[in-house]
Amino acid sequence: MESKPRVVIVGAGFGGLAAARALKRAPVSVVMVDQFNYHTFQPLLYQVATAGLEPEEIAHAVRGIFHRQKNFDFRLGKVVGADLGRRALRLHDGCEVAWDYLILSAGASSNDFGVPGVKEHAHFLKSLTEAMALRSHVIEQFEAAAGDPALIGRGALNFVLVGGGPTGVEMAGALVELIDRVLVRDYPHLDVSRSRVTLIEMTDRLLAPFHEKSRRHALAVLERRGVDVRLNEAVVEALPGGVRLKSGGTIPTRTLIWAAGVRANPLAGFLGLEQVRGGRVKVNPDLSAPGHPEVFVIGDMAGSTDPEGQLHPQLAQVAIQGGRHAVKQILRQIEGQPTREFVYHDPGVMATIGRNAGIAELPVLNLRFTGILGWLMWLFLHLMYLVGFRNRLNVFINWAYNYFTWDRSARLIIEPDLAGPAGERPAG
Amino acid sequence: MESKPRVVIVGAGFGGLAAARALKRAPVSVVMVDQFNYHTFQPLLYQVATAGLEPEEIAHAVRGIFHRQKNFDFRLGKVVGADLGRRALRLHDGCEVAWDYLILSAGASSNDFGVPGVKEHAHFLKSLTEAMALRSHVIEQFEAAAGDPALIGRGALNFVLVGGGPTGVEMAGALVELIDRVLVRDYPHLDVSRSRVTLIEMTDRLLAPFHEKSRRHALAVLERRGVDVRLNEAVVEALPGGVRLKSGGTIPTRTLIWAAGVRANPLAGFLGLEQVRGGRVKVNPDLSAPGHPEVFVIGDMAGSTDPEGQLHPQLAQVAIQGGRHAVKQILRQIEGQPTREFVYHDPGVMATIGRNAGIAELPVLNLRFTGILGWLMWLFLHLMYLVGFRNRLNVFINWAYNYFTWDRSARLIIEPDLAGPAGERPAG
Repeated sequence: MESKPRVVIVGAGFGGLAAARALKRAPVSVVMVDQFNYHTFQPLLYQVATAGLEPEEIAHAVRGIFHRQKNFDFRLGKVVGADLGRRALRLHDGCEVAWDYLILSAGASSNDFGVPGVKEHAHFLKSLTEAMALRSHVIEQFEAAAGDPALIGRGALNFVLVGGGPTGVEMAGALVELIDRVLVRDYPHLDVSRSRVTLIEMTDRLLAPFHEKSRRHALAVLERRGVDVRLNEAVVEALPGGVRLKSGGTIPTRTLIWAAGVRANPLAGFLGLEQVRGGRVKVNPDLSAPGHPEVFVIGDMAGSTDPEGQLHPQLAQVAIQGGRHAVKQILRQIEGQPTREFVYHDPGVMATIGRNAGIAELPVLNLRFTGILGWLMWLFLHLMYLVGFRNRLNVFINWAYNYFTWDRSARLIIEPDLAGPAGERPAG
Repeated sequence: MESKPRVVIVGAGFGGLAAARALKRAPVSVVMVDQFNYHTFQPLLYQVATAGLEPEEIAHAVRGIFHRQKNFDFRLGKVVGADLGRRALRLHDGCEVAWDYLILSAGASSNDFGVPGVKEHAHFLKSLTEAMALRSHVIEQFEAAAGDPALIGRGALNFVLVGGGPTGVEMAGALVELIDRVLVRDYPHLDVSRSRVTLIEMTDRLLAPFHEKSRRHALAVLERRGVDVRLNEAVVEALPGGVRLKSGGTIPTRTLIWAAGVRANPLAGFLGLEQVRGGRVKVNPDLSAPGHPEVFVIGDMAGSTDPEGQLHPQLAQVAIQGGRHAVKQILRQIEGQPTREFVYHDPGVMATIGRNAGIAELPVLNLRFTGILGWLMWLFLHLMYLVGFRNRLNVFINWAYNYFTWDRSARLIIEPDLAGPAGERPAG
């Protein structure tokens, strides 16, 4: 049985899932390794952080996804090392996982770009636990201000987002909506209008990869909804009670949300492979690692480029197409054929800025939507991509509920931070 | 505005919610204090622990429940003390909350009955975080066994439940179902049949408060589904790798689930009021605290008794009726009328043992259902009681999905415990 070649896939993100699925009928055995036992639908993490969706609705157990795939097995584990010569990964528990072919699709993590204090004081939006922690933290600020309104003057209801890409824009839009539509009703005795959402972007534009019209639309919608957008600005230091700005001022806040960019998974470094910008692994045109034709690197970890030499954007679609491409090349190698180069087909980009306001650009059809049409397109495509029928239905109900009632039901502080002033025994 | 008397309610459980709702049109201001910002539907915690429901589906933000109640306010806080003379609660942050009338409905927590090791090694099922931790823990055992099957021989797939009341019975039924129907498909390479669920009960019967026929039905169903039920047995010590039994043997296990009983919230002790069995507060027949006619104690915290002097059972219905009763007596006091004694009207008891098997006893109608009818009755009534339209609809979908697909979608290990053997840097 184990005479079939074994393909090991590291990472259960979009790229890893696409690769495993593409191997369904292949004469190989597949082992997927991830430190979580679930796939996270990362583009919707900001909805969890703003209480619009429940964590379980954007996560799906990996073993459940591949119930019907006979050649698939899963291994829960952190990769702590790898030996490219012996072709074996080393896991947190000391066990090894040997491969004949390896697909590295471990994604990327947040990048603080060396700004002091960010690692210690910022919230990130790359994992389910981070999104849940941010949700609790935001609601806790309102509870704290309700208990002691003087905290508002010290920035308790100021929320500062750094990074004007899709994550920052979507999070800012969802956050003002949560505050102005839902929390304002939750806290009738609190002057919620004193809350501020600030979006800080280093360059002179939001949503850089989008068309100029879409970018202007996003900026206009955010500002109309009350987001304080600051272009050509940056955070130079994060402190426990605020952020220092490049322009000289400071904003008092207890909530810094860092969406400024990502860095490839540190696994890229462990492997001793050459890295390019953002810690991404330098790859051959066929996505294999230089000198290791049996190792493929895909998605956010891969330093693959378009014909002009530009690094591919770190988007789900690049990872999905990369996963399928890597599988095809592995099968070609098994059949003794030469590999082919990876060509990314851009299906378009989308973002939503909140209720009734979205952007969708479909270059293939030469179409561009903004406003409610862009938003509906965004809703529809995200529902279609969500893994699992039940998740889709629950997400649809929650969105419909949120839309028609102007409510958010998931605004729970799962583990409130109620440390007493003198460590007294808690009750109540 | 603050000339109206202020009613402070401690605890957002069934009793607290019922009391706050009953005060909706009363000429008082209401402040509810809880250490969580949500109500937990405790009877379904075992469904969260067995991946049948998502945590957010059995929890509802307190402020959301009372959006439309003008005289209501909420305070997130742990009660760390109270001064009955000055009529003020002290909270974790040093703030005080003063009352004219106080309703104590802070519930109960798990009781280890002094059995050594239970506090350190057992899982409990009284809060959402405990239920989520247990869910992660159960799945982690299967992941660990998948990585190293030798662990099965050391008890990794043995699950020991202590306590044959509704919680223990429902949890045992749901757990065998999760293992035999869902996990068996998740782990095709693992001999899941070597997993054991053991239910240990000190007395000679399960579900003591139920009719003898119902009790026999529950025992028969559990045993038919593979639960190892041990009556007249007890755990005398919990160890990291197993439990020692009264009868002399040991069971190797990494999962001890303690559902043996509860103890009133320690707040009962702080107050300096007289306590009866299980730490419950001794109360007057009208549910007021002796010597403090303006303080009412309800639900699991109250040592209220039936006409024969038996303590009331610690059930949601007792708390709900107690909350409404306390409110009526407060209003009578405001109007200068004498208070009346609390009489509990037993609407019946229900439990479910898994798919198609439930028990419902309705003494008022002199009806008793077992099997699929009892199960449907249980489903229907729990759906009706669940707070919030959206929660009801999502729960219904999840149950229907689980029922027809034999699947459970929420089987996520939110924060896996993957400590490396040498503290190496994680990745992957």
